[in-house]
Amino acid sequence: MSELKNDTFLRALLREPVEYTPVWMMRQAGRYLPEYRATRAKAGSFMDLCRCPELACEVTIQPLDRFPLDAAILFSDILTIPDAMGLGLSFAEGEGPQFAHPVRSAADVERIGVPDPEGELRYVMDAVALIRQELGGRVPLIGFSGSPWTLATYMIEGGSAKGFTRSKAMLFDRPDLLHSLLGKLADAVIAYLNAQIARGAQAVMVFDTWGGVLAPSDFREFSLRYMERIVDGLTREAAGRRIPVILFSKGAGQWLDRMAETGCDALGVDWTLDLADARRLVQDRVALQGNLDPCALYAAPERIRREVGRVLASYGAGSGHVFNLGHGIHPDVDPEHAAAMVAAVHELSRPYHAR
Amino acid sequence: MSELKNDTFLRALLREPVEYTPVWMMRQAGRYLPEYRATRAKAGSFMDLCRCPELACEVTIQPLDRFPLDAAILFSDILTIPDAMGLGLSFAEGEGPQFAHPVRSAADVERIGVPDPEGELRYVMDAVALIRQELGGRVPLIGFSGSPWTLATYMIEGGSAKGFTRSKAMLFDRPDLLHSLLGKLADAVIAYLNAQIARGAQAVMVFDTWGGVLAPSDFREFSLRYMERIVDGLTREAAGRRIPVILFSKGAGQWLDRMAETGCDALGVDWTLDLADARRLVQDRVALQGNLDPCALYAAPERIRREVGRVLASYGAGSGHVFNLGHGIHPDVDPEHAAAMVAAVHELSRPYHAR
Repeated sequence: MSELKNDTFLRALLREPVEYTPVWMMRQAGRYLPEYRATRAKAGSFMDLCRCPELACEVTIQPLDRFPLDAAILFSDILTIPDAMGLGLSFAEGEGPQFAHPVRSAADVERIGVPDPEGELRYVMDAVALIRQELGGRVPLIGFSGSPWTLATYMIEGGSAKGFTRSKAMLFDRPDLLHSLLGKLADAVIAYLNAQIARGAQAVMVFDTWGGVLAPSDFREFSLRYMERIVDGLTREAAGRRIPVILFSKGAGQWLDRMAETGCDALGVDWTLDLADARRLVQDRVALQGNLDPCALYAAPERIRREVGRVLASYGAGSGHVFNLGHGIHPDVDPEHAAAMVAAVHELSRPYHAR
Repeated sequence: MSELKNDTFLRALLREPVEYTPVWMMRQAGRYLPEYRATRAKAGSFMDLCRCPELACEVTIQPLDRFPLDAAILFSDILTIPDAMGLGLSFAEGEGPQFAHPVRSAADVERIGVPDPEGELRYVMDAVALIRQELGGRVPLIGFSGSPWTLATYMIEGGSAKGFTRSKAMLFDRPDLLHSLLGKLADAVIAYLNAQIARGAQAVMVFDTWGGVLAPSDFREFSLRYMERIVDGLTREAAGRRIPVILFSKGAGQWLDRMAETGCDALGVDWTLDLADARRLVQDRVALQGNLDPCALYAAPERIRREVGRVLASYGAGSGHVFNLGHGIHPDVDPEHAAAMVAAVHELSRPYHAR
């Protein structure tokens, strides 16, 4: 493996000194980039793109060729695990994901096994290895997975859902069944992320996209508990270097303190919380990643610069901040606006790290 | 006007002593009730139902005939104001609301006037008066409106929207335009709610359904500021009795303290916050209304009872709590489950008010 030339991102996650605040964007390999759309068209379906390591590698690296980002993130989808569990994933054009075989009954849960990361999910591992090789040490590679609760919602609803009524009906009416499903998912996520780390992922992130739709005690019981189990089960060192773990629950501003106790290294923060408040909540136990409103990229570049300045100021001085959007970049954003954001982060953050 | 026989709801909103915790449900007049579906079928379209005072009165009172609820809420829609502004509202079956003439440009904003509550919106006022008469003092009647920010999102998007990208694009790129629109909406809401109060509404609630999609400083600038203006502009007494004002921003758990400073009497709280934490945040400046997860009504009655007990315990002893769901009741809930909730609130809350 080539030596890492820019490890700013990894150092910031471990709250070690850095010269500037590192930056990457959720969904940085995505539809807002014309080069992504070209590769996507070549691939066929969205899942075809995920399943082809060469093309997944290509789109992973595209944003790095445009912007001086400080991290790459594996191009894939959180639903690869349920797909490998045999639920039959498809993406209808313009619709969200759909499962042919949703999980609704005790028999459905019973039937589910933990997929072999080097079996059904080998295409993901091959992509990780290929991306590491192609990156040649430019920046670290982030591996990722959905959280058990978030994956369970898709599996129970049979796709994206408004109101999460089926998942929550199971939570309130058959909590035993939901726990059994979540336990299997936690095992699957641990195996999946450890395999990504074995193949070269240098940091991992768990996306708990729908943790924020739960009441506080339900969040602790049905989402946080399983993320904690995942953090405990992960390989935390590879090639002599710590593998940082980032947890991200959207809409979980008021529970950041509890999430900081899981043993993770960093927490993703959406834009509905001031980073100053977030930092107070976690009391320097973990780094923070975020949290510009993705819609700020609709503004003119000078306004974007001002918004970047505001986010940097809200975190304040010292290491432990990775700049990011508070959610994925929108498909209709002008790539030049993303460029303005990245440049502003690098330029305006230096005073916060001066020693 | 007949004398009010049950004023528990009004007393709780003003944090005066009560014998039990009063309860009502957001969207209590709604699709989960077969009698509502029958009236709705008779009316024609959803807006036809809203526009006919007799039918609006009928569905408003239906849930009170089934459950011993402590308040009635005017049956209407938050989009009556934009409709009266000439945006051309329609509800396609199974779809959300749609506006024929969305607000996108400076000229669009310029064109908008403040509707006369006793003119284009007279059907709402007639419904309020008729409901008061038909209630005969059983319980108080709540009037309501959408918040300026929430109404603006529908007007700019042209209906319901995922991601609020157009509204936020205006916020970031043309804040001047958005402020001009929000100012007009605040004036319209004040006139609208004051007219409801003049016709008999005994409490009013402002639904800021989409306040929670904003970053904290944007929430203060584009949503909270206008709700504050509304609170200042409302008639606060009628027939010798205070008219309590309730503000409800979904997903606004971390800003409750700021909302408590607006001069309102009570805050609605969604289910993502413990009421104990909410109470600490507002420090007894206002009453709290909430906050059972609406999906808890999918559980069996004995589980519902336990969840009700948990919510009551999280608020704790003393007045200042109005029990409600954290959001509207889902259309596929069994009415018997709603009955179980109401009964549990009345029964289990008495010890918290014993003196």
